[in-house]
Amino acid sequence: MKISQRAINMPSSPIRRLAPYADAAKRNGIHVYHLNIGQPDIKTPKCGIDALNHIDRDILEYSPSDGYLSLRTKMVEYYAQYGIYLSPNEIIITTGGSEAVLFAFLACLSPGDEVIVTDPFYANYMAFAISVGAVIKSVKTRIEDGFRLPSVEAFEEQITDKTKAILICNPNNPTGYLYSRKEMNRLRDIVKKHDLYLFSDEVYREFIYTGMPYISAFHLQGIEENVVLFDSVSKRYSECGIRIGALCTKNKTIHDAVMKFCQARLSPPLIGQIVAEASLGVQKEYLQSVYEEYLDRRNFLIDGLNRIPGVYSPIPMGAFYTVAKLPVDDAESFCIWCLSEFQWEGATVMLAPASGFYTEPGEGRQEVRIAYVLCKEDLAKALVCLEKALEAYPGRIEE
Amino acid sequence: MKISQRAINMPSSPIRRLAPYADAAKRNGIHVYHLNIGQPDIKTPKCGIDALNHIDRDILEYSPSDGYLSLRTKMVEYYAQYGIYLSPNEIIITTGGSEAVLFAFLACLSPGDEVIVTDPFYANYMAFAISVGAVIKSVKTRIEDGFRLPSVEAFEEQITDKTKAILICNPNNPTGYLYSRKEMNRLRDIVKKHDLYLFSDEVYREFIYTGMPYISAFHLQGIEENVVLFDSVSKRYSECGIRIGALCTKNKTIHDAVMKFCQARLSPPLIGQIVAEASLGVQKEYLQSVYEEYLDRRNFLIDGLNRIPGVYSPIPMGAFYTVAKLPVDDAESFCIWCLSEFQWEGATVMLAPASGFYTEPGEGRQEVRIAYVLCKEDLAKALVCLEKALEAYPGRIEE
Repeated sequence: MKISQRAINMPSSPIRRLAPYADAAKRNGIHVYHLNIGQPDIKTPKCGIDALNHIDRDILEYSPSDGYLSLRTKMVEYYAQYGIYLSPNEIIITTGGSEAVLFAFLACLSPGDEVIVTDPFYANYMAFAISVGAVIKSVKTRIEDGFRLPSVEAFEEQITDKTKAILICNPNNPTGYLYSRKEMNRLRDIVKKHDLYLFSDEVYREFIYTGMPYISAFHLQGIEENVVLFDSVSKRYSECGIRIGALCTKNKTIHDAVMKFCQARLSPPLIGQIVAEASLGVQKEYLQSVYEEYLDRRNFLIDGLNRIPGVYSPIPMGAFYTVAKLPVDDAESFCIWCLSEFQWEGATVMLAPASGFYTEPGEGRQEVRIAYVLCKEDLAKALVCLEKALEAYPGRIEE
Repeated sequence: MKISQRAINMPSSPIRRLAPYADAAKRNGIHVYHLNIGQPDIKTPKCGIDALNHIDRDILEYSPSDGYLSLRTKMVEYYAQYGIYLSPNEIIITTGGSEAVLFAFLACLSPGDEVIVTDPFYANYMAFAISVGAVIKSVKTRIEDGFRLPSVEAFEEQITDKTKAILICNPNNPTGYLYSRKEMNRLRDIVKKHDLYLFSDEVYREFIYTGMPYISAFHLQGIEENVVLFDSVSKRYSECGIRIGALCTKNKTIHDAVMKFCQARLSPPLIGQIVAEASLGVQKEYLQSVYEEYLDRRNFLIDGLNRIPGVYSPIPMGAFYTVAKLPVDDAESFCIWCLSEFQWEGATVMLAPASGFYTEPGEGRQEVRIAYVLCKEDLAKALVCLEKALEAYPGRIEE
């Protein structure tokens, strides 16, 4: 008995490698500020919780494999607010955004097929690619350039006869970058020219802090059939646990192929769908206050980071992450050191080493991803911890 | 843009092919008795629904990737009642039993690896095998033999150097067969001799209607490290919609490999775990009355089936399905005909053509799977429909 080659190939996440150190710190009574994960501290809308508390059913039965029509119909209205015009039959409810990615890969990519992503990228894309035997090729974006989209040439250098798709995350996790109209048009042209799928993960569309408009992949004309959109209510409504996402496509062939995988797993979570449907009716005030909270946190965090000697963070335009450069020899060593060797007034900070978001070993060695999912008061304390830790860290380097 | 080869290879289920005919029948005002799917009409335990209605949380957040420790601890107690002794660290909570199968395949099977199943088998095993590039090899069981386990020789004929696992479902979906101690020992010997995984789907262990003991794969001595058990609360508590299953293994290497895939999809459903944990505390009376209900239905259905001229059903020992042989030219044609051309007093019956559960085209052509998930009153009416339909069906054949 041997485990599969793909299990061996699955990346071990630096965040997971840090977990035992965080556990040990907590056992020693040290408070850990978690800036390492995308679990918001924002409250779920009350209408979502209320829906749970008022479920009046005798049987918690299977739902349709593509999710309840009532939920998909509400999502049609939701997308229309963003100028995305879909019918319920173009939306498939998935078990979190994660399953949308996995099923798109299963349905569209054969083993050996290549997907181009911009580096750094959400690490689980790699896990799903390995799961289906697809190969991730990356085009590099750089902190010095604010992680903007690489040139057409950089993409075309990576295109081979195995290339089947480009995958973007917009607004971006981990960088917080938001693609401009011009950049999206550039992607459209490449997708069209080479007849590729455009997989677009847009789960952070509520969180855009700049005057720039949000350009969905579905706003791009002439490639409507190429686009597969990944979505999730996890971040939008602080409902990560209900595992409700969506895969949207106007391409009937892709839709039907994805449905085969949906049918095999029978149905997405019933109760999560009830919560998500109720949450889609949340009052504008909720979304507005959540938005203002994140905007405020972003401004506070980025300002604070850039005030720390030797630290640099671009200003993220969306999502609730930033990738920052630290004056350290190795960000993973620094993150472990923060958890195992350091404390400031009984507390420390946990960050995600950015190396886990890059394809090439050695990339992003001085970078960390910071999620601003804590309240400003805690962010302030976490920033003090970070500053003090950088002063004391033996592997500090000055550039 | 082309969809993946595996999407093309995904089997199209005869049950799905029937769906439009059932929809059309309903639109024409005909009542359809659904004996085609495993969605029980049994009520979910009240303690499960109550848990939902009393959820008092501000944030519906991610749960751990392997599920809540409190749930896994309760499952340890549950399994101990069946003489299965596990620790919480040997249990991984999955999104339904389906995900347990998928993740076991992903973690244990490389593309091209072979899994031996007994034919007929739960059709989605094939879908998951195709998803991961594994190959299903089958050893035939026959309705004439009551679907008993084939000989050691029949298994060994299928074993090659690519064989990595044997997959059983016990009690069996679709046949209702329950493996005896002797048969399980036979499997143990093959597994041991050839150093294979034994994947054992035991989601129907509550539903055993014979004096024969339930032998779990975990009861087999000497292959503890080879066993991967799939479980689900779906059928046990009539909670198909909450999507809570489990993968159990005492093999640390497999456990850790599976966890990589669990981490990639972040977490199983939070709310389903809360319902499942509450349901594990259901009073014995609930389980007893559900058991008696199914036992009663089974006796009634099998008796009724075997009274219809030309129909034969073995007596299923477990689960809530039977595979019956009908005096028809082609069961799929007959099932479609029942939905599109036939009615008896405003009603008809929907059955699952058994061909969808067999590997080889043409196998099980005269067989259907019948799920006794309706109350006896409805089963009685469905049996009348079936009898009248068989009398009227133009493709009837006498043997």
